[in-house]
Amino acid sequence: MTDTPLIHPVILCGGSGTRLWPLSRQSYPKQFTPLIGDETLFQASVRRLSGVGFAAPVVLTGEPFRFIVLEQLAAAQTQPQGVLIEPEGRNTAPAVLAAALWLASRDANALMLVAPSDHVIPDAAAFRTAILAAAPRAAAGDLVTFGIHPTRAETGYGWLELAEGADASATTPQALARFVEKPDEANAEAMLAAGSYLWNAGIFLLSARAVIAAFEMHAREMIAPVRAAVDGAQDDLGFTRLNAAAWADVPDNSIDYAIMEHADNLAVMPFGDGWSDLGDWNAVWAECGPDADGNVLSDNATALGCAGTLLRSEDGAQELVGIGLEDMIAVAMPDAVIVARRNDSQRVKEAVTALKARGVKQATEFPVDHRPWGWFESLVVGERFQVKRIVVKPGAALSLQSHHHRSEHWIVVQGTAKVTVDDEIKLIGENESVYIPLGAVHRMENPGKLEMVLIEVQTGSYLGEDDIIRYEDVYART
Amino acid sequence: MTDTPLIHPVILCGGSGTRLWPLSRQSYPKQFTPLIGDETLFQASVRRLSGVGFAAPVVLTGEPFRFIVLEQLAAAQTQPQGVLIEPEGRNTAPAVLAAALWLASRDANALMLVAPSDHVIPDAAAFRTAILAAAPRAAAGDLVTFGIHPTRAETGYGWLELAEGADASATTPQALARFVEKPDEANAEAMLAAGSYLWNAGIFLLSARAVIAAFEMHAREMIAPVRAAVDGAQDDLGFTRLNAAAWADVPDNSIDYAIMEHADNLAVMPFGDGWSDLGDWNAVWAECGPDADGNVLSDNATALGCAGTLLRSEDGAQELVGIGLEDMIAVAMPDAVIVARRNDSQRVKEAVTALKARGVKQATEFPVDHRPWGWFESLVVGERFQVKRIVVKPGAALSLQSHHHRSEHWIVVQGTAKVTVDDEIKLIGENESVYIPLGAVHRMENPGKLEMVLIEVQTGSYLGEDDIIRYEDVYART
Repeated sequence: MTDTPLIHPVILCGGSGTRLWPLSRQSYPKQFTPLIGDETLFQASVRRLSGVGFAAPVVLTGEPFRFIVLEQLAAAQTQPQGVLIEPEGRNTAPAVLAAALWLASRDANALMLVAPSDHVIPDAAAFRTAILAAAPRAAAGDLVTFGIHPTRAETGYGWLELAEGADASATTPQALARFVEKPDEANAEAMLAAGSYLWNAGIFLLSARAVIAAFEMHAREMIAPVRAAVDGAQDDLGFTRLNAAAWADVPDNSIDYAIMEHADNLAVMPFGDGWSDLGDWNAVWAECGPDADGNVLSDNATALGCAGTLLRSEDGAQELVGIGLEDMIAVAMPDAVIVARRNDSQRVKEAVTALKARGVKQATEFPVDHRPWGWFESLVVGERFQVKRIVVKPGAALSLQSHHHRSEHWIVVQGTAKVTVDDEIKLIGENESVYIPLGAVHRMENPGKLEMVLIEVQTGSYLGEDDIIRYEDVYART
Repeated sequence: MTDTPLIHPVILCGGSGTRLWPLSRQSYPKQFTPLIGDETLFQASVRRLSGVGFAAPVVLTGEPFRFIVLEQLAAAQTQPQGVLIEPEGRNTAPAVLAAALWLASRDANALMLVAPSDHVIPDAAAFRTAILAAAPRAAAGDLVTFGIHPTRAETGYGWLELAEGADASATTPQALARFVEKPDEANAEAMLAAGSYLWNAGIFLLSARAVIAAFEMHAREMIAPVRAAVDGAQDDLGFTRLNAAAWADVPDNSIDYAIMEHADNLAVMPFGDGWSDLGDWNAVWAECGPDADGNVLSDNATALGCAGTLLRSEDGAQELVGIGLEDMIAVAMPDAVIVARRNDSQRVKEAVTALKARGVKQATEFPVDHRPWGWFESLVVGERFQVKRIVVKPGAALSLQSHHHRSEHWIVVQGTAKVTVDDEIKLIGENESVYIPLGAVHRMENPGKLEMVLIEVQTGSYLGEDDIIRYEDVYART
């Protein structure tokens, strides 16, 4: 084992699934939520790839999620090796290449374990064992993909065909014949029956060197712009911001299409069936361990005469009751509720598209808005007023700003706020308030060691988030 | 028609149905909600019994609902003849007797049209015609009950058996053989097939004199305490508050059991089938006029591949999506959601009982709390703080009060507040605030002509509604 190069987890964290709406929305996708258990899927993905043999993680994410990534890593007491910000989503191929180029410059022998951030693998130790077992093969230059033992004729995944003589139940990397695109039902049934096919989970163990070589051979056009984006990257508050101008020239492609379907130095590492991509609510139901009646119930959920049903209430202040439901899912949030036949879970995406077309904000926006300094939520919106709860992290500060169309009343209900209003700076304690007149230049900071919670009452003729002039911002948003 | 005595609508408005939970809760039952159309069921009941031949309504209700009744009558521009407050619910018999005694002292020939406040009768004109047609018979001393043409073998209602030779489709009162208690399925089927049975809708046309005579004959024990409660009633802010001490001795009974099942001066007025007691969500679905797919959708509700399904979102800020649902109901509120098979609608009551047993406040409490001066709702409850939206009616005032455990910040966001804090009285306009220290004696009034809306931020160690000392109250709650 001592000869194996260090394995660098490369966590792909840019995507935004809508199939688990309303819990997963564009503004706060499912990897950042505690869908199963107490930690978020992203945190579980990071924890799973830590320990002996593993380097600190490299995270690839998008601009809107960078502070959520940092916050969740901090909460999991993980110091990342790097957080690479993709200026725009370009699918997995450029992300993997960027990570390879970035890592190669730090560790010439780096192995990369590329994994999505929104999958579930309950047996983390077994997964690490499989990774370590595959490491020599990857170090030798092969492109190792992880193949999951299939349990159903799934048409939603790509499949992997093992080479003649390879053993699907082996615990070492096997020869791979080819990548199979998402099949139709008949082909899926045939592959399930054949026993020589595995699911493609989108998890790879690759040496940075082999990745770069594969791109040079099969997707040469991607090299120059991605290299320019990495070489031109800027360090920004601890993030590595890939160069946007260079990135704009990067073609959009998946790692499967760009590389894997063309390469001949492929291997597959078979892995047990304790894996799920939580692709829809049906999968969440299955992963949560249904009870004797086949039900999965969250806190605040009550089932009468239900079977095979998922009832999730996502808010402690909301009760959810199901009566006589069979093979259904119901997920309730204060601003959005979905009820569906479990077998129609895939159509959730369609519903979100319909809501989006109608301009419904819940289609894409999560009720809680995460910012670098903490988060806020709107408690009520009236005709000429709005009330928000604002939570500011210890040591954090909002930008120095002013508004053209609203005044604000701030009442501190927990902790201490340092408040700037025009030329005056003062400390506001719990149960104290301050008034920010229209046009005043103001800032809110939390100088303390505990979270500061503040109720903001806005009044004015226009209350949009875009009525803001920023003068200074520690998060470089001016 | 000129010889017919005036018909006094007697609206029974004390009940609290839980079968339409979460829209109908103990603290705000279904008759006060706009379940169908824009007016509430109570308002529709009052409007239905107005016009030529009808006196102003007499409403019987309970202590918690008295201001809601007044408010909804005012909104419907109806001046009641009286609002009688039952100190405790004692079922329909004492309520009808109290109304009869109260009316007899004002109009010796009074006819009473006794009706629940939570039924739907789409063709109000036809109903009034039927009432007027039955009036001579009631004036002559018979007890006239309204019989609905049955459309199904309903086991949830009592039935009425017509006398030999009576005509179920007549438009004049017919002879009634007997009241039939809620039947089993076989008996319900037999009655439906026989054609000589009608549903008992709990609607009666009776002379006050005949009611008193019937009680004297069949339920004599009720007379003395109910008379004492009526004679000892107190006028209180326009309400007639029945004497509580006397009322405590009144036995609990329904008008059917106490009188109708024993009387021999009965008649039945057949009525068309455009009637519903909205007894469960299935009935609401049916009354709302399902579309071509059998669906009933509220605003903010989206159906994909649904049939025979009711999707109701009760809040403009909450989206409800149904996918692949067949014969289901889903009703969403920000604090409670129910999803049920339409045929299991009757079990909603059971669910509410289960929630109650767990001490869940949503089982009984509506999120909006109606008070004599307006209403309030809690927007967020934290560990040591709570934020409320408070809406005060023009000219209304909260009690002069103080709290032991909390301070309050008030921010006016609409209208003008007249605020008393200890010895100081001042006017607070939109976008102004005032602080109420712990222990300060304070009051909030709306001196204006428009609704006043105020955001209250409470901080303190205990934030219960019962931390209140009332010094003065225009609504007699001190």
